This record gives sequence, C-alpha cells and structure tokens, in this order.
Amino acid sequence: MKIAVLPGDGIGPEIVAQATKVLEALRSDGLKIEMEHAYIGGAGYDAAGDPLPEATLKLAQESDAVLLGAVGGYQYDNLPRPMRPEQGLLRIRKGLGLFANLRPALLYPELASASTLKPEVVSGLDIMILRELTGDIYFGQPRGIRTLENGERQGFDTMHYSESEIRRVAHVGFQIAMKRGKKLCSVDKANVLDTSMFWREIVTEVAKEYPQVELSHMYVDNAAMQLVRAPKQFDVILTGNIFGDILSDEASMLTGSIGMLPSASLDINNKGMYEPSHGSAPDIAGKDIANPLATILSAAMMLRYTFNDEANATRIENAVKRALAQGYRTGDIYTEGTKKIGCNAMGDAVVAAL
Amino acid sequence: MKIAVLPGDGIGPEIVAQATKVLEALRSDGLKIEMEHAYIGGAGYDAAGDPLPEATLKLAQESDAVLLGAVGGYQYDNLPRPMRPEQGLLRIRKGLGLFANLRPALLYPELASASTLKPEVVSGLDIMILRELTGDIYFGQPRGIRTLENGERQGFDTMHYSESEIRRVAHVGFQIAMKRGKKLCSVDKANVLDTSMFWREIVTEVAKEYPQVELSHMYVDNAAMQLVRAPKQFDVILTGNIFGDILSDEASMLTGSIGMLPSASLDINNKGMYEPSHGSAPDIAGKDIANPLATILSAAMMLRYTFNDEANATRIENAVKRALAQGYRTGDIYTEGTKKIGCNAMGDAVVAAL
Ligand SMILES: CC(C)[C@H](C(=O)O)[C@@H](O)C(=O)O
Ligand SMILES: CC(C)[C@H](C(=O)O)[C@@H](O)C(=O)O
Repeated sequence: MKIAVLPGDGIGPEIVAQATKVLEALRSDGLKIEMEHAYIGGAGYDAAGDPLPEATLKLAQESDAVLLGAVGGYQYDNLPRPMRPEQGLLRIRKGLGLFANLRPALLYPELASASTLKPEVVSGLDIMILRELTGDIYFGQPRGIRTLENGERQGFDTMHYSESEIRRVAHVGFQIAMKRGKKLCSVDKANVLDTSMFWREIVTEVAKEYPQVELSHMYVDNAAMQLVRAPKQFDVILTGNIFGDILSDEASMLTGSIGMLPSASLDINNKGMYEPSHGSAPDIAGKDIANPLATILSAAMMLRYTFNDEANATRIENAVKRALAQGYRTGDIYTEGTKKIGCNAMGDAVVAAL
Repeated sequence: MKIAVLPGDGIGPEIVAQATKVLEALRSDGLKIEMEHAYIGGAGYDAAGDPLPEATLKLAQESDAVLLGAVGGYQYDNLPRPMRPEQGLLRIRKGLGLFANLRPALLYPELASASTLKPEVVSGLDIMILRELTGDIYFGQPRGIRTLENGERQGFDTMHYSESEIRRVAHVGFQIAMKRGKKLCSVDKANVLDTSMFWREIVTEVAKEYPQVELSHMYVDNAAMQLVRAPKQFDVILTGNIFGDILSDEASMLTGSIGMLPSASLDINNKGMYEPSHGSAPDIAGKDIANPLATILSAAMMLRYTFNDEANATRIENAVKRALAQGYRTGDIYTEGTKKIGCNAMGDAVVAAL
C-alpha cells in the first residue's frame, strides 16, 4: 500500500512527522506500507509556484491514500486567489473525487474539562458529521463578479447538487449510520433553497434502502442551535459542502480540543485523504509544541477506511488513549496535574504505547 | 404612529397579546400609537388562502412599524412551498425592503444558568448580529430544479450581492458599532466564494468612513467555532442572509434562553418589523405557558429604532428586568426558587413593573 505524505505548511511538517513515526512503528511490526512525500499549499507554491504542483497530484493519484498535515500561512495571504494554499486543498479534493468528508466530533473523557460547555451537556459526545466535499457552492458555475445593467457590480456564486451527487453521499451516510447508532439527521435549508428541497427528496428516497436507519431532517439554522443546546441528540449528521463546513467546525469546537480531531475524505472506492480537522497554526509552527494526536488519529482512520485494517486502526487509537491516560498532554490540552510535553515527545509516547 | 400587529401562528397570538398589553399601558400614559391586526403565515393561508394576504401587506406598508408573533405549524407542513407560512415572512421582508436584521444575543444575569455553556464563558455576553435580510441566496435568480444534458436532475440556487446591497447594510453595521463597543466583525467565506470576496472588498471600503470602528474579517466556519470557544470576543457581527441565519441562531442559543431574545428588521428609513427570535412553538400553543418576553422586548426595540423613543424603550426593558428580579419566570426559564407563571401573568407582571 502506498501513502502520499503531504505535510503542507505551518505545523504540518512536525505533526505529520509524528504520524509517520507511528506508521513506521507499525511497519516494523509487519504493516505493508510505503510512503512518499510531496509539497502542497504554501509549500507547493514555494517549491513549484503552485499550491498543488502537478507532481503532487500525480503522486496522490497513484497512491492508495494521502496523509495531509495542514495548509496556509501569513506569508501567502496576499497572493492572488489561484495561488493561495487553500486552493491546493480544494483542487486535490476535486482532483481525487473525494466527495465524502467524515468529521468525527468526539469528546475524550480525559479532556472533558477543555470544553466550554457544561460537562453534562457534552460528556460522552460522539457525533459523526458527513459533509459532501466536491459539490455545492464550492465548485458551482457560473460565478464571479459581473456588472449589472444599471452599472453596478455584483458578486455571485452558484449552489447546485445533482441527483447522483446526493445519492452517493447519502449512501455513505446511511452505511456509516448502520455501523453506529442507526440515526441519520440530514441537514439542509429546504424551506428556502431549491437545492435543499431536491437534496431532501433524494435523501428520503435513498433512505428506503436502509429501513433500519431512523432518518430525520433538520434546517441548518436549527442544527446550529441544537448543536449548542443538546449535541448528544445527534448520531450521524449528513449535509452539503457549505453547511458541513460550518457545522463540522462548530461541532468540533464543542469538544474544546480540536487538536484531537481527525478527518477522512473518501472517494467512491474508499481511497482517501486523511488530515487533522484543525488548521496550520502558523503562530506556533516549528516550536515543537503542536498537538500531533489529530494527525496520528487520522492515520488510524486511514488504516480503517482505506486499508480495511481495523486491528491496526484500533491499535493506534488505543495507544493514543493510553498516552492520555498516562497523563501526557501537549500545551493545548494541558491542565494542572498532567505532564506537559512537546509534539515530538507526544509522538514518542504514542509509539511507546503501541 | 401606526403599528400593524401580525400575531401569526402557534404561540404567536398569545405572546403578541402581552406585547400589545404593554404598549396599551404606555398609551394610557401618553404614547401616541394606534394598532391594527392582520393575518400572516398559516393564519393568512387559513383566512385568505395566502401566507401573506394582500390586505396584510397593504396594512404593513401603510403602517410605521410591524409587530409580528411567529409563523408555522404542523398542519401547514405539507402545503406546496408558495403556500407555506414562512413564505409570508420572506415576502413581507422583501416587500417592505427590510434589509437590516438586528439580532441581539444578550445574556440576562438572572438567567445565566440556563446556558449550556460554562458561566465564565458567557457571563456578560452581549453580541449584536446584523444579518442582511433581502439579498443573498434567499432571493437570487436563477434557481429551481433542472435536467442536465446527461438526463440527470439537479437542484440549484444563485447567491449574489450587489455593491449597493452590501454598502447599505455595512453602513448600518458601522453605525451600530459606533453606538456600542466600536468593534465590527464581518463574516464571510472569501476563501471560497466570489460573492464573499466582493462582500469583503466593499465592507473594507465602507470602513474608511468609520475610522473609529475596528473592523475584522472572519470566515464563517471559524465564526461558528469562535462563538462556541470565546463568544465574548464579539461586539457587532455583520454578515449576509444565509450565514446570518445560521450564526444568529447559534449565538442566540448560547444564552440558553431564546425566549428572551427580540429582533428588528429595518428598511432604509428605519421603518421596521419586530418579532421574537424564537419560532411559533405549535406544541405549546394555546396553553398560556409561552414566554412573551422576547415579543415584549421586540416592542421595546420598535420604540427605540422606529419611533426614536428611547425613554419608553428603556422603560419596557427595565420593567422586564424588574419582573425577572422579582422572581417571575415562565416555564422555559424556570429554576428552583423562582415563581413559575403563565404567559398572560408574565404580561401583567411587566405592566405592573412599568
Ligand atoms: C480552507 C477552506 C477552503 C476549507 C473549506 O472550506 O473546505 C476548510 O475550511 C475546511 O473545512 O477544510
Ligand atoms: C423561516 C425561515 C424562512 C427564516 C429564515 O431562514 O430567514 C427563519 O429561519 C429566520 O431566521 O427568520
């Protein structure tokens, strides 16, 4: 199995190094993988003048999975949009057909106090957000800035979803729900948007093939409220690209420790790209203080979803839990009475706990 | 001054009755108002086959302000979309040109424990969200469900904002910020959407006329996170229609007592529609247990923003605070040691406290 490793920018290289360290440890134990590195984001721009260099996309296409760090940095903020780091991200998602973005919001009992919500509201929180990732207003045409008949300028974008786009991500959603609590909440804005009305129609149709899953529909504004009011009501949330962008970030922050949250973006054959839910944190880059656990847990997701290697996925996840139980913490999740360690040491702690 | 009173559906009639009771009390004290009732939402459909009967729009147009309860009820859920209650709402907003939607998220010290967030995170919370209300993907054309060349169906909508639309709501935002903490955070998705890129450009331009206001920009996914992480960092949030729909609901839920939150929707001359932030709650309608305070506080906003009557606005707000201080609570905000009363009795308590 071949893994394309794309560290990216900011803390990307240091957190990815910990995840590859963990994968190396499993390899010396018999896991058959090979890893190759390439540039993406600002690092791609610096190396090849392009946030997604051709060689990187080619490597990703030839690999079975991609392990990504994060992209973005202050020095790229004033580049023209096509050269900006996040364009590398958007293009690799589209280029690899990664339409199914899985974003768990899981509260680790040891870290419960990090949440800004009251313990009784979030204890045991375990939501899986499934965000469609290659459609919607992110990629819809036409878009741009045009001049209206009255001479005024207007910015515009197009939201759209076709039947097949909705159908395939809905199937993924129901299949995930089958393996979890068998509850799927589809989030849209069907009282206002035609795209959403159509989304709801197709999701309802697909639901007939999964009679054991309890399907509900919720408007996005209400979902944003309910995540704050009573987040444990949710099992799997299925939604489109833009609503998923907003809700998955909101949901991950409910845990208070976004440094712990991995993500997976899958294509139709479960080939995937795996990355932490958090960003590139340029302010703490290179200081060996970043939390590598979200990236390490992303590697675990890779073993589970793309390599179908549940045993090694669980082994990594248990090692992370053990390191936490032993009291090891990076600065972002540190509380009195625990042992504060750096990024590299945390990687070592997980390897030791394997 | 003429007020169009539109009770709407569900708990609408009972909560609006308390607000008009408070206004009547001020009238006997010299406030010069006259009120006329009309149907909207499901009530409009029942009475005239239209969620916004012509007579209602006409009354609203001829009035100086509109006091609205809420719209929506289970019995209307399966009507074709143009007949659904919320279409009455969307059409009256557009028909009256109510582009500036003010949604305060304010934590009442007496009700702090109702929040699902930790007290230190939300105590003293006082955010004003300004949501553009007549543009964006809510009203953009073209939209619908079309058949693609390959025979597949596709739902689609158009997001757009013109320069003048952004400019006028930005001015309102900066003016509100001037009267508050002089901080304005404009929320968009400029790293992905052309509409947002244009939004950011125009807001930045308008900012030059308000050098005393500190302007920042934030992506909507980050804003959804920051509202959970550290909501007190915000003073005024300015955003478009769809992002504002989501973020204002999220922000209001941070207080835990959405039954307390009023809203105002203003046109270019400060003519406005005033309504509680919460919905029509059909499950508790007619039981005299709904919380009328958000509606009563909406009447206070009406006096402040449309009638320029700060004295009477403050008088209502102080009366509400006094009723709370006296321990009166409707069921939704009740806690042990306080006095649980009904909707009507709460209206009386506020009148008594005037
Ligand atoms: C960087 C940005 C383009 C991206 C998105 O909006 O998809 C990010 O917010 C994410 O969620 O991965
Ligand atoms: C009912 C619905 C159309 C409406 C909206 O989305 O604007 C509501 O959610 C609101 O915020 O007032």
